[in-house]
Amino acid sequence: MTGGTRRRIVVSTLAEARFFADGGFDDILYAYPLPFDKLEECASLAERLESFHVLVDSSEALALLKRRRLSPGKLWKVWLKIDCQNGRAGLSNTDPAALELARAIAEAPTELLGIYAHCGNSYSCRGVSEIQSVAQATTLCTLNFMDKLREAGLACGSVSSIGSTPSCSHPVPEMARLKEVHPGNYIFYDVQQMMIGSCQLEDVAVRVLTRVIGHYPHRNQLLVDCGWTGLSLHSLGQLPTGYALVEGHPNLKLVGMTQEHGRIEPTTGELDFSKYPLGSLLALIPYHACATAAMHPLYYVHSQGQLVATWKPVRGW
Amino acid sequence: MTGGTRRRIVVSTLAEARFFADGGFDDILYAYPLPFDKLEECASLAERLESFHVLVDSSEALALLKRRRLSPGKLWKVWLKIDCQNGRAGLSNTDPAALELARAIAEAPTELLGIYAHCGNSYSCRGVSEIQSVAQATTLCTLNFMDKLREAGLACGSVSSIGSTPSCSHPVPEMARLKEVHPGNYIFYDVQQMMIGSCQLEDVAVRVLTRVIGHYPHRNQLLVDCGWTGLSLHSLGQLPTGYALVEGHPNLKLVGMTQEHGRIEPTTGELDFSKYPLGSLLALIPYHACATAAMHPLYYVHSQGQLVATWKPVRGW
Repeated sequence: MTGGTRRRIVVSTLAEARFFADGGFDDILYAYPLPFDKLEECASLAERLESFHVLVDSSEALALLKRRRLSPGKLWKVWLKIDCQNGRAGLSNTDPAALELARAIAEAPTELLGIYAHCGNSYSCRGVSEIQSVAQATTLCTLNFMDKLREAGLACGSVSSIGSTPSCSHPVPEMARLKEVHPGNYIFYDVQQMMIGSCQLEDVAVRVLTRVIGHYPHRNQLLVDCGWTGLSLHSLGQLPTGYALVEGHPNLKLVGMTQEHGRIEPTTGELDFSKYPLGSLLALIPYHACATAAMHPLYYVHSQGQLVATWKPVRGW
Repeated sequence: MTGGTRRRIVVSTLAEARFFADGGFDDILYAYPLPFDKLEECASLAERLESFHVLVDSSEALALLKRRRLSPGKLWKVWLKIDCQNGRAGLSNTDPAALELARAIAEAPTELLGIYAHCGNSYSCRGVSEIQSVAQATTLCTLNFMDKLREAGLACGSVSSIGSTPSCSHPVPEMARLKEVHPGNYIFYDVQQMMIGSCQLEDVAVRVLTRVIGHYPHRNQLLVDCGWTGLSLHSLGQLPTGYALVEGHPNLKLVGMTQEHGRIEPTTGELDFSKYPLGSLLALIPYHACATAAMHPLYYVHSQGQLVATWKPVRGW
């Protein structure tokens, strides 16, 4: 994914940052509002790596960085987070405080490295047109802010980045003027992204294999050995097929899950239990790959029907 | 919890069974419909322990056990799962096949050890009266089935067990006639159990500490560093206070979570940000302790304000 460079990645936890640093990666952005209890861990990564970046959206966080100077020759590399109608982290792009904070970051011992916006509001879109509308709005919002920086004489060193899997799956021409994009979910994609319009079902590269463990004709249901510890509850059961898609069986609905059990019934009609013998496997296509992946200690990587690798995910913080 | 005996426990995964076996526990019931791919792992535990029990609710699963004999002197110790209106695993208690399966289990090389019913339907109750109604119905259903066993000459060795945290929190007198009960969530309790009526808020012994990482007056919200990786989505946000309770702050509502972020706003009025400084801690009381606990690699155990232990949970299967 980095073309062999092991450079220019974004992480959302310090556990991920440490993992990648240990693996020889550098130029790592910890794209998360600087947690006040993790300043020393950030400093350690900033000292250790050539280019470790933090993100701030408050003068209080910046003050922390200014008080905790790095060793001579090192400056904190800082991104300013702005909020372009997403409503999670970031100073509103129209708030004069955003430009003021950019100016304050640009003063030593910190370096204003870039402007970061996340268009998570693309997750409420349905279809390419709505996605592109959000992508364009966030891009223009960010580019306009970059213009304001230049007008204020703060341009040097600043790069711009926006992202979300929906918007980066259907980029608009204006995005070519950004320096970076930062999607994440596209590695696997999932049913949620398919419903949003980011991808097609055949693009989804993650499955949870589950085994049939019970036949209950009196209630027209079968039981599988995947509960929410194996899938998460993230669709809230609201798909036409419940909590997931059952690959190759569009007539099946995962109607409920408890910790280690999943209940499946037909969307209509009587279940033909002979098609799903006890002990046989079904493949669930998750609604939210990130949430499902977070439940597993090991991933089995397949290519052309062969197991080619196992991956251990980084969890925790 | 076992009074020092390290005996008579119920697990829902083989990972848990192995963990407890390694810790010197015995008399372990793996209360899960025998998964066809895990027969050898079960056999290994059955050989290794004095008393490892499996659970079946199909003749196919029993056939597997009969084909995989244990070493001389060892019999598979088997519980029959019956379904008393819960609608998850188990043969319906009124299905003649249940008694037939009990008879088949009682034949060597398997031993009919007990009858097991789970009253998970108590989770849809509100208040003690509704809980006790389910507890009583499940108890009588199970005891009646035990009577049928005796009438069929199959009584010997059979014990009975029902359970769920709500029903075992408010036991009915009839439950004294059961040999065992098997609740689980009561160890922590949680907001869900409080809503059901199993416990009071002060009984809930689990918290997720989270740190304030953002102030956003323009939308009357603050951000905390707990997303669904730290809490799960299990309340679906439907509590009056959203996805959790914020301890000591009944006016706060956790309105949304993404992977690593939580958004909090007041239930009414304007947020007084000075009460929640950046970097300060809030304590979230989870909706579903099992789901929240499943997200963490380590628990910090407190007593009277002191950290007295750390626990590593068993995850996986």
